[in-house]
Amino acid sequence: MHPSKQRKLATNIATSTETSITVRGKDLVNELIGHRTYTEMVYFLTTGRMPGATETKVLDACLVTLMEHGMTISAIVTRLIADNVPGESQVAMAAGLLPIGSVFVGTMEGCARILREGVERGGDAEAFAQAVVADHMTRKAALPGFGHRLHKPDDPRALRLLAIGEELDLKGDHIRVLRALGVALDAALGRHMTINATGAIAALLCEIGIPLEAMRAMAVVSRAGGLPGHIMEERRTGSGRRIWRMVDDAIPYEPPEDDGGA
Amino acid sequence: MHPSKQRKLATNIATSTETSITVRGKDLVNELIGHRTYTEMVYFLTTGRMPGATETKVLDACLVTLMEHGMTISAIVTRLIADNVPGESQVAMAAGLLPIGSVFVGTMEGCARILREGVERGGDAEAFAQAVVADHMTRKAALPGFGHRLHKPDDPRALRLLAIGEELDLKGDHIRVLRALGVALDAALGRHMTINATGAIAALLCEIGIPLEAMRAMAVVSRAGGLPGHIMEERRTGSGRRIWRMVDDAIPYEPPEDDGGA
Amino acid sequence: MHPSKQRKLATNIATSTETSITVRGKDLVNELIGHRTYTEMVYFLTTGRMPGATETKVLDACLVTLMEHGMTISAIVTRLIADNVPGESQVAMAAGLLPIGSVFVGTMEGCARILREGVERGGDAEAFAQAVVADHMTRKAALPGFGHRLHKPDDPRALRLLAIGEELDLKGDHIRVLRALGVALDAALGRHMTINATGAIAALLCEIGIPLEAMRAMAVVSRAGGLPGHIMEERRTGSGRRIWRMVDDAIPYEPPEDDGGA
Amino acid sequence: MHPSKQRKLATNIATSTETSITVRGKDLVNELIGHRTYTEMVYFLTTGRMPGATETKVLDACLVTLMEHGMTISAIVTRLIADNVPGESQVAMAAGLLPIGSVFVGTMEGCARILREGVERGGDAEAFAQAVVADHMTRKAALPGFGHRLHKPDDPRALRLLAIGEELDLKGDHIRVLRALGVALDAALGRHMTINATGAIAALLCEIGIPLEAMRAMAVVSRAGGLPGHIMEERRTGSGRRIWRMVDDAIPYEPPEDDGGA
Repeated sequence: MHPSKQRKLATNIATSTETSITVRGKDLVNELIGHRTYTEMVYFLTTGRMPGATETKVLDACLVTLMEHGMTISAIVTRLIADNVPGESQVAMAAGLLPIGSVFVGTMEGCARILREGVERGGDAEAFAQAVVADHMTRKAALPGFGHRLHKPDDPRALRLLAIGEELDLKGDHIRVLRALGVALDAALGRHMTINATGAIAALLCEIGIPLEAMRAMAVVSRAGGLPGHIMEERRTGSGRRIWRMVDDAIPYEPPEDDGGA
Repeated sequence: MHPSKQRKLATNIATSTETSITVRGKDLVNELIGHRTYTEMVYFLTTGRMPGATETKVLDACLVTLMEHGMTISAIVTRLIADNVPGESQVAMAAGLLPIGSVFVGTMEGCARILREGVERGGDAEAFAQAVVADHMTRKAALPGFGHRLHKPDDPRALRLLAIGEELDLKGDHIRVLRALGVALDAALGRHMTINATGAIAALLCEIGIPLEAMRAMAVVSRAGGLPGHIMEERRTGSGRRIWRMVDDAIPYEPPEDDGGA
Repeated sequence: MHPSKQRKLATNIATSTETSITVRGKDLVNELIGHRTYTEMVYFLTTGRMPGATETKVLDACLVTLMEHGMTISAIVTRLIADNVPGESQVAMAAGLLPIGSVFVGTMEGCARILREGVERGGDAEAFAQAVVADHMTRKAALPGFGHRLHKPDDPRALRLLAIGEELDLKGDHIRVLRALGVALDAALGRHMTINATGAIAALLCEIGIPLEAMRAMAVVSRAGGLPGHIMEERRTGSGRRIWRMVDDAIPYEPPEDDGGA
Repeated sequence: MHPSKQRKLATNIATSTETSITVRGKDLVNELIGHRTYTEMVYFLTTGRMPGATETKVLDACLVTLMEHGMTISAIVTRLIADNVPGESQVAMAAGLLPIGSVFVGTMEGCARILREGVERGGDAEAFAQAVVADHMTRKAALPGFGHRLHKPDDPRALRLLAIGEELDLKGDHIRVLRALGVALDAALGRHMTINATGAIAALLCEIGIPLEAMRAMAVVSRAGGLPGHIMEERRTGSGRRIWRMVDDAIPYEPPEDDGGA
């Protein structure tokens, strides 16, 4: 049954009166502003539960990890749009968030789905991991959460995040499955393949109870926080215009082989 | 001179090697992940300076204020798109950020511009405020940062934010101009008009050195953190489909007066 | 091999000199402007071939079919954004195109994929259709291109488009498979299920050689042509603001069942 | 008075029943599909009037002019997003439409506003043009609709469009003002500055009664028709990935001058 067939539509999120705003049952002005950090609020608004100190630290670590790593596709798109739609930064930022798609960041969800399945099944993580790896190798499919174009032998962000997970004494079920996958993958390949940042983030977000369906949204929140810096640098350097010229100059026109007919 | 005429294009933001990522001169893995909060990083990436405790508290308070207040246009758009483009949350979120435009949130920049001008001129804040108010009244223009459709007599978020500004012992120049504008506006109107949330945020962000050009981007970052909750509720309630039907049913078709010619 | 591993990147699309613009081997100024319609150009730019009169008529019919049918999600989103980002119509239009996703319009691609498979296999269209229908019924999957929430017993647009296909004496292979699917579906269900507009468009676009990968793009082009009318009506009626209030008023807040913890 | 204060919200655009769809008073199935071209429908939906043959020819010429000229910012953004969000072409296309902003294409509106003012004033077009040019030169503002980075001495698209305007025997008031502006500008500068494509389009769209408020939307419709070709070429060449690498490689990191504090 599509949820739209269900009972009267309502929202649990927020309401306002002349003198107050209530957000998920809490008074925005007296309980949240000045009392909670942005990161705590992201967790609260996403899950409906106010996080404890550990959950907040984990979410901060994950959000900080993906915020910025230079001339990403997001950054390039934001700069191109900022140059052409000045005075409306939200347009450049929104455009820069659109490429957070299935190809790169979306692997976080694929990885989290496997981790959750491993945890839900219980039993022997090693056997589960070997079966998952064998299945991906048979299908010649990349194992989501593993491998990185640049970072070798290990993605340093993944190592750091997993170390934070250990320091904070998380329950660790999802991390154990991730590590078992890594062992099984290395054995199957006969060489080391790094757990990457999206793999480690998938495990940590699972540990703190972020639903699978909200994982990509966390990546979007993270990346959103990096884009204002690109807009500021764009204003200073005029990079959007220059990137455009660079690309246009670098891609020569070749006439089509036929004359297009008619 | 357009900045694109300047020297070779470079970036101060980030770079990577096989084993490290550097963000604005700091080592992402060893100095930032697990050491800094998302909010600290937003400030750092936007301004190039790592914030102190006071700046972080102010930015957190401002970000928390705008994150959520229910069925905003952002939330409605996000829900409509999430229903139609499932599995790509970034699209729904990006669409929901597009309406953070000049009409509502953009007033923050207009207010900040006036505050900054008042501070830069120095001298008598009252005289400056009276002149600004008189000018707006002559032009029948709304004074940005003042008035609210719902919240009366005062926007409770603005009161709270200004109280936080006092607790934290900010320098307070921009807040003083904002308060002087409020006094001058009330006197000119002969009734009380509230400082609203965007007015208070404009003053606080000016106090902590967020550039005018980054203010709307701060609102975008804030709102981005609220949208995942709407996506989760959309999945549970099917609100997007139901909002569409509700709107379609509520707006009757009236034939055009002429027949469209030809 | 990812295409990016291939030979030097070039484009077959367009180039300019001080005095001319060349588009897919043709002189824009002397061969295209004033000589070709927009619809001919869409076909030419998408496929690389200039269409004949029949292909142009079919593409025009398909584009006209999807342009407009009132308060769609696209139209609502465009109006909401136009109200909030005045003076930047492209933002409202772009936002209104985002929901042309897999849920409704994307069924065109699913249908086209089946039609193409049926044509490529050759042989008995009836047997192919029965097998496809049986497979979808076993999987309890909707057959893409069939059924409509409102239009019963038949989607009048589909009937019209298929009639145009016959008048124009298309080869008709894909249309035959579509009709065979309809017969098989009705037989399997024991009642009539309409071919819908996206089903008929899928068949017609296949007939004229639009690649599967460009079908959704044709829907986007079509819908883009309807949105300026909504922007104009938005300016006249202020509908965006009113839709927002209507939705906000209609969705009551219900406090969450627990108190959100902490 | 904001239009939202007005009478009950209704739409003149479209409605449906089980067996018919009505668009601006016409039967979609029997009067429009197969009878009208996409371009006629764009005019009809935007203005509420069905165009005659001349208006259709002019609109086609204007739409064809802006559809394509190679590696524009629109094309680059579309390719970057298409690479990252495969299977959702509407996202890549929407993103590619966002940069149709005030910097380049928006000059069409600025030019049209001047032309309309000149026509409404009536009287001596030369005197009007000289005053406008003098005003722009005093303010050191570019005259919208004039000048082109590449095309010299004349933008060949503008010449062609104005020739079409003459062939079709338009009333010509707006074209006359545009030409007068050109004469006045050349005289004031002491050298020839071309009327550019957006200038000529502004004049022609004014001639056929496209409202100022819909002009940028016409550019969006035009450009939308060019983007499917870029998506198809992106699939074949993997250009998005390669553009990203090219830009990332070309922009070196320079550490910030201070250490970012704290």
